[in-house]
Amino acid sequence: MTVAILGGTGKEGQGLALRLAARGRSVILGSRDAEKGRAIATELNARISSSLVTGTSNLEAARDGVVILSTLPYPGHIEIATELKDQIAGKLVVTATIRWPPSLDGVPSAAEDLARALEGSSRVAAAFQTVSAGSLNRLDGESEDVLVFADSPGTRREAVALVESMGLRGVEGGPLEKTRVAEALTGVLLGINKIYGVKSTGIRITGLPARGSSP
Amino acid sequence: MTVAILGGTGKEGQGLALRLAARGRSVILGSRDAEKGRAIATELNARISSSLVTGTSNLEAARDGVVILSTLPYPGHIEIATELKDQIAGKLVVTATIRWPPSLDGVPSAAEDLARALEGSSRVAAAFQTVSAGSLNRLDGESEDVLVFADSPGTRREAVALVESMGLRGVEGGPLEKTRVAEALTGVLLGINKIYGVKSTGIRITGLPARGSSP
Repeated sequence: MTVAILGGTGKEGQGLALRLAARGRSVILGSRDAEKGRAIATELNARISSSLVTGTSNLEAARDGVVILSTLPYPGHIEIATELKDQIAGKLVVTATIRWPPSLDGVPSAAEDLARALEGSSRVAAAFQTVSAGSLNRLDGESEDVLVFADSPGTRREAVALVESMGLRGVEGGPLEKTRVAEALTGVLLGINKIYGVKSTGIRITGLPARGSSP
Repeated sequence: MTVAILGGTGKEGQGLALRLAARGRSVILGSRDAEKGRAIATELNARISSSLVTGTSNLEAARDGVVILSTLPYPGHIEIATELKDQIAGKLVVTATIRWPPSLDGVPSAAEDLARALEGSSRVAAAFQTVSAGSLNRLDGESEDVLVFADSPGTRREAVALVESMGLRGVEGGPLEKTRVAEALTGVLLGINKIYGVKSTGIRITGLPARGSSP
């Protein structure tokens, strides 16, 4: 089940690609610049002795991916996704894009904007908002969780399964609107990074049932 | 260094008192009803074979505590704290009170309301917003963190030291305004509790330096 990563040549997209390919999933990196997509794919394959990563345009990635991950930068992410609406229709679209700067002023999250723009044509979930590119690119490290938001429990569970196929624990955080909290929390984590002089803090949810007994 | 817990007879206050007394700190539980304060203090002492917990009115607790913890319920917490302004002047006041329901609409957190009401007469920090009474009352369990917010780094560190004297890790989360995120996150944690059928989820910050190397 090939995963397409839109805007996949950034650090966050590369980290997701690495984790997927390292576990045997085929990944298509989409980029505004197909040539750049191919070049980064070659680099990633070399890093993990794989041939599972390919690179191309966002349009071809969206068309050929069975599941869509989006690490498109916040400025312009809606315009690009809207152009790809036909290619991603009927698919699970998991967006990691966060509104920047984060706001606690009642403004919708980037994920809510995306869901509205796609008008129900794709199944939209949000995930990875609090996960730094540094954590994704480090295949070891202290185990952090990925909060997953979607209005439909079924969509949340699909997205959790995708997250878990990367060796990370996905935790259902509730409806898409709550992505606002994950965005704001990312702002707090960046502040914590500064205070403690570190680069990649994340969160883990304590008090959950042991793995394997998800709802 | 005696710790007074205002509104300390609720489940959250009891949990904090237990953790402090179990580590040798004297605790005064303040209550609207001094008699209730005394009764709960007796119960807590019995649970941990201690005599370190005493109970009284909020006023006497505020007067006699060297450090003040507040677990006052959200409705009325500002009125009570304002009445105790003289008793808590010049002291560290760590509030666990959260605005309910949590809002992401740009409204100040309960802690910001408190700081404004006290007009700089006390050193105000926020902590324990994401920590459930269930976690506090369980002296074992998966280790969760306590986010600590205050405008002054010195006040944050004082509050972190208080948290750590209870055997919990305190993590500086930044200025008091960011308590809004901790309040909103508590709303998400309650949602996670429902989804997973558990009672006391919390958070842990990953990627921090090892304990003992705080900033």
